[in-house]
Amino acid sequence: MVPLGERSNDPVLPDPPQGPLHVARARASFPWKELALFWEGEDTLRFKKTIFSALENDPLFAHPRGSRLSVEKYQELSFLRCKRVFEYDFLPLGDMLGSLPKVLALVECLGMYDWSLATKFFLHVLTFGSAIYSSGSERHFKYLPKIFSLEIFGCFALTEVSHGSNTKSMRTTAHYDPTTQEFIIHSPDFEAAKFWVGNMGKTATHAVVFAQLYTPGGRCHGLHPFLVQIRDPKTLLPMPGVMVGDIGKKLGQNGLDNGFAMFHKVRIPRQDLLNRSGDVTPEGAYVTHVKDVGQRFSESLGSLSANRVAIVGISVVNLKLAVSIALRFSATRRQFGPTDKEEVPVLEYPLQQWRLLPYLAAAYALDHFSKSLFLDLGELQQGLLGKDRSVRQAELGREIHALSSAGKALASWTAQRGIQECREACGGHGYLAMNRLGDLRDDNDPNCTYEGDNNVLLQQTSNYLLGLLARRDQGGARIESPLKTVDFLDAYPDILGRRFEGSSPEDLLDSSVPLAAYEWLVCYLLRESYQRLSQEKRSGRSDFEARNNCQLKDDAVALVDVIAPPDFILDSPIGRADGEEVSSGFWVKRPPSSPGSSIRTSGLPSFRETRCWRGHHGGRNSRSTSLS
Amino acid sequence: MVPLGERSNDPVLPDPPQGPLHVARARASFPWKELALFWEGEDTLRFKKTIFSALENDPLFAHPRGSRLSVEKYQELSFLRCKRVFEYDFLPLGDMLGSLPKVLALVECLGMYDWSLATKFFLHVLTFGSAIYSSGSERHFKYLPKIFSLEIFGCFALTEVSHGSNTKSMRTTAHYDPTTQEFIIHSPDFEAAKFWVGNMGKTATHAVVFAQLYTPGGRCHGLHPFLVQIRDPKTLLPMPGVMVGDIGKKLGQNGLDNGFAMFHKVRIPRQDLLNRSGDVTPEGAYVTHVKDVGQRFSESLGSLSANRVAIVGISVVNLKLAVSIALRFSATRRQFGPTDKEEVPVLEYPLQQWRLLPYLAAAYALDHFSKSLFLDLGELQQGLLGKDRSVRQAELGREIHALSSAGKALASWTAQRGIQECREACGGHGYLAMNRLGDLRDDNDPNCTYEGDNNVLLQQTSNYLLGLLARRDQGGARIESPLKTVDFLDAYPDILGRRFEGSSPEDLLDSSVPLAAYEWLVCYLLRESYQRLSQEKRSGRSDFEARNNCQLKDDAVALVDVIAPPDFILDSPIGRADGEEVSSGFWVKRPPSSPGSSIRTSGLPSFRETRCWRGHHGGRNSRSTSLS
Repeated sequence: MVPLGERSNDPVLPDPPQGPLHVARARASFPWKELALFWEGEDTLRFKKTIFSALENDPLFAHPRGSRLSVEKYQELSFLRCKRVFEYDFLPLGDMLGSLPKVLALVECLGMYDWSLATKFFLHVLTFGSAIYSSGSERHFKYLPKIFSLEIFGCFALTEVSHGSNTKSMRTTAHYDPTTQEFIIHSPDFEAAKFWVGNMGKTATHAVVFAQLYTPGGRCHGLHPFLVQIRDPKTLLPMPGVMVGDIGKKLGQNGLDNGFAMFHKVRIPRQDLLNRSGDVTPEGAYVTHVKDVGQRFSESLGSLSANRVAIVGISVVNLKLAVSIALRFSATRRQFGPTDKEEVPVLEYPLQQWRLLPYLAAAYALDHFSKSLFLDLGELQQGLLGKDRSVRQAELGREIHALSSAGKALASWTAQRGIQECREACGGHGYLAMNRLGDLRDDNDPNCTYEGDNNVLLQQTSNYLLGLLARRDQGGARIESPLKTVDFLDAYPDILGRRFEGSSPEDLLDSSVPLAAYEWLVCYLLRESYQRLSQEKRSGRSDFEARNNCQLKDDAVALVDVIAPPDFILDSPIGRADGEEVSSGFWVKRPPSSPGSSIRTSGLPSFRETRCWRGHHGGRNSRSTSLS
Repeated sequence: MVPLGERSNDPVLPDPPQGPLHVARARASFPWKELALFWEGEDTLRFKKTIFSALENDPLFAHPRGSRLSVEKYQELSFLRCKRVFEYDFLPLGDMLGSLPKVLALVECLGMYDWSLATKFFLHVLTFGSAIYSSGSERHFKYLPKIFSLEIFGCFALTEVSHGSNTKSMRTTAHYDPTTQEFIIHSPDFEAAKFWVGNMGKTATHAVVFAQLYTPGGRCHGLHPFLVQIRDPKTLLPMPGVMVGDIGKKLGQNGLDNGFAMFHKVRIPRQDLLNRSGDVTPEGAYVTHVKDVGQRFSESLGSLSANRVAIVGISVVNLKLAVSIALRFSATRRQFGPTDKEEVPVLEYPLQQWRLLPYLAAAYALDHFSKSLFLDLGELQQGLLGKDRSVRQAELGREIHALSSAGKALASWTAQRGIQECREACGGHGYLAMNRLGDLRDDNDPNCTYEGDNNVLLQQTSNYLLGLLARRDQGGARIESPLKTVDFLDAYPDILGRRFEGSSPEDLLDSSVPLAAYEWLVCYLLRESYQRLSQEKRSGRSDFEARNNCQLKDDAVALVDVIAPPDFILDSPIGRADGEEVSSGFWVKRPPSSPGSSIRTSGLPSFRETRCWRGHHGGRNSRSTSLS
């Protein structure tokens, strides 16, 4: 690291403007610019500065915050900004594949500005783009330049109205028809509608659609990804047989157009199956190099690990912004003091420190974790693309699945709670919209539930760890993993024998002490869970029952009836007293007999109206929102 | 209680509509209508039904939710609805004083519909109205009929830009001028501006303003309440010398117009001092029946306990709505299951039960606590109005201060966390705005910080308990209180000697066991805190230092500099790198030389612009928003 003195004229880290914070800043025990250089590296700092300066100097990026605009205006503005980011070409295609830290920095910079914009950009380039790149084959690479030139605009359509976490039960179908060599994409009912899909609401022209693949004779080969055109790129009108629209206002990220789609026997060429893990011959035979349906499915969903790793990074960015706002406020906001005349900054109070400093520490720790996990993911993706079928590659995939599952839950919850603490620690000023803590909380919130509900994901990691323990205990296999994150567990009997022997406060200040305590705790919880699960299984319960030994809850609905107001007052489609619309999240008056039939949805126009309106809207705004 | 069978034709509790929830409802172990009758009483149930039906059948109350409207539209609609609620006259003035359960039911009904409306209504009637009634005297009662006829519309102006919790440091002044027998209300600088005042933003014509009272000669007698007219009731234009406007968008409750005001030597008649605890003679002599400034101040702020009790009730309502939505959703939403074909409602999963059922239990427990605390408050208020100066009355005031402080923190945090858990437990459906969990969270959020930050309030309760312990240990006084909530602490040495002696799971199911454990914990924590505080004091530190033994935190601002983006990207006035505007929450370019001078505020028009614009706005909309 170059000493700070030699860089004093270097504008990559300008001095902060003078003001009341100068006093607090001057008391630091270290030069912050040196830490910044060490933490980010000069290349990354310069890259970030380039992006920040471009946005600050471009009138299109002038505030006010999107949350003050109507949803329609905000979505339109986000798309125009997204186009402009492509024009800036901060990270050309070649560089993007070669420099993962810069990809992460670009995510961070756009996200620090506005997650609606950043998500829109990355759903198109990374989620849609890399689904084609990594789930498809050479015949699909023709789409890549079109992605970067915005000739097409993409989305990733996995989730359905009635199924998010339970991907195996998804209902969209793709029947192969050998007479025309086409797949027929179809949504059998409303619950099978693709839902929540980012970019699908108004702007996407193409979607990677996950559907159950059927070959002639009716055999199902499980969920596969297909590339489906959903709108005309010039007019943004839906393609024939596609019913598509926006799902309506969300708690946050309203600049992003999340959408729904139903397909009525939409025919696509055989070649538009993304065929990395399985293909269909012109005659209709299914061919694959992966025998097991489960393994094939896992491979085709490899990109979900990538999404979870991204969410770790997104959450960290939100936490960094929130603690920056709250700590700067606390260092200058004065309340009370030792005498009536003299007031002290609230940061001087231990209470305020206890509230905020742990989240500052978490921001640093999670920032480091996020960066290293992102690099590990890069290694995994390289292996997938290189068709690495080694045991190590498979182990790495499982380890990153476990790390990204737990990491996503840890990071998103820490950010959510941290933002709330920051908002409360700023009192009324934190409740003013212009101070942004509300937007940060609302934009961060979905990180807790999408790409897998946090609780479900923690169970995924728990299953991974229990599996390692079972293999050690039953087969004598050593507990180890490519990234070595679980290796310490192999010594779990020894670790459980450890006792804390510190005798003075100094003993506790050694960082190895809490680390050892943490290792003990992980081993203890793991062994207890393993023993309890084994016991349940021995008692004859099925796996499903063993994990869901029910109790207590039959009175819950009646207890709710006592305290709930009438439906008009409760005003929540999923909370209605009859439960009618709960099954789909919408008030479906009658099932769809055919696409285009009028399905009433609560709070949304009918589907027919939606299609007309969305098409009309796309048409009216075609000058500003068409893709070419 | 009348058996349910005899009431089957009684429409006060109609059967819920048939639908998917019927299955879950039928499994309950008790008849929910009987519990509802027992829980609320038939009178209250009928009263609530009357209100709910009136709103449901009145087109003015048709949804959509306010959060989908512009702030201006939403505020206008809330005022019109508020007027309509007065027209319905659900609870005439006479009944309001005599039937506290109905007052609570009215709060609950309006709040279940929309807190912006409910808060607007009650800030006018209860906070403003009872401040005049309980802090004033006979000469002010002429205002009461005008409050109910909406001839005037009121707000309660205590908080200032720079001081919320620290009321003693507030800076608005009221100098008495004996030559004209007037008080001169004045804001010496921007930090003294009244801020956050509900109803002040656009609609209030009168304010109860707290100001430091000075008599000729310059002697300050502390904070007193004054009735100040701030707008013309016909045009809603500000009165001369009053600079008033809306503080801008908040995270929630945007149908309520929170405002700011600065006063430039505004003269009001001597009689408009609300003189219950202190008065000024025409000649300028200060007279009071209360010797101590602190006690006088406490008495004048008696209404703050009422506000905190109200917040307990508000929080409970939000929690009841959230668990109603989430549990009904969970009882019909199906995901996964023992076989691939069969899926089960997510409420069947222990995980979902662990997430939601504790909050259902909390809703019931806090609902009961809220109701009983409200009745206790009524007893306190009766004593205040009857000028009860007994020891018991003073003790009751202290006890209710302690109960409402801790209760407000407990209820608002439980609701905030409960709503977040409900939102996450509903997955993506919880993130859709139309399902209301976002509005509930945003509307509940300020309960955690206004009327005293929760952490500060917990210290108030802690101080009360420590004081009781000190009196017992030093003077031998018995620990007891009018409502008997602390009486058990008198036996704290015995309680601390208790040991848990259960030996079977059944022993734990007895509800006296956790109650005994809780008593032990309270005693333990109290004794430990007391001993530590005594030790700190003996070591020679002042009270202030003893409670704020600082550590760790000087590096915080520099650590933030490393992770914070440039100000344009961070986009938060209170988070700016120079800290300049943090001191006031606004970007004040130069201090006001005189009222009406142009003070730039970040995100708001200049004050001069604000005044003109607000006045103009009020004028333009005078047909729809004027008060007569």
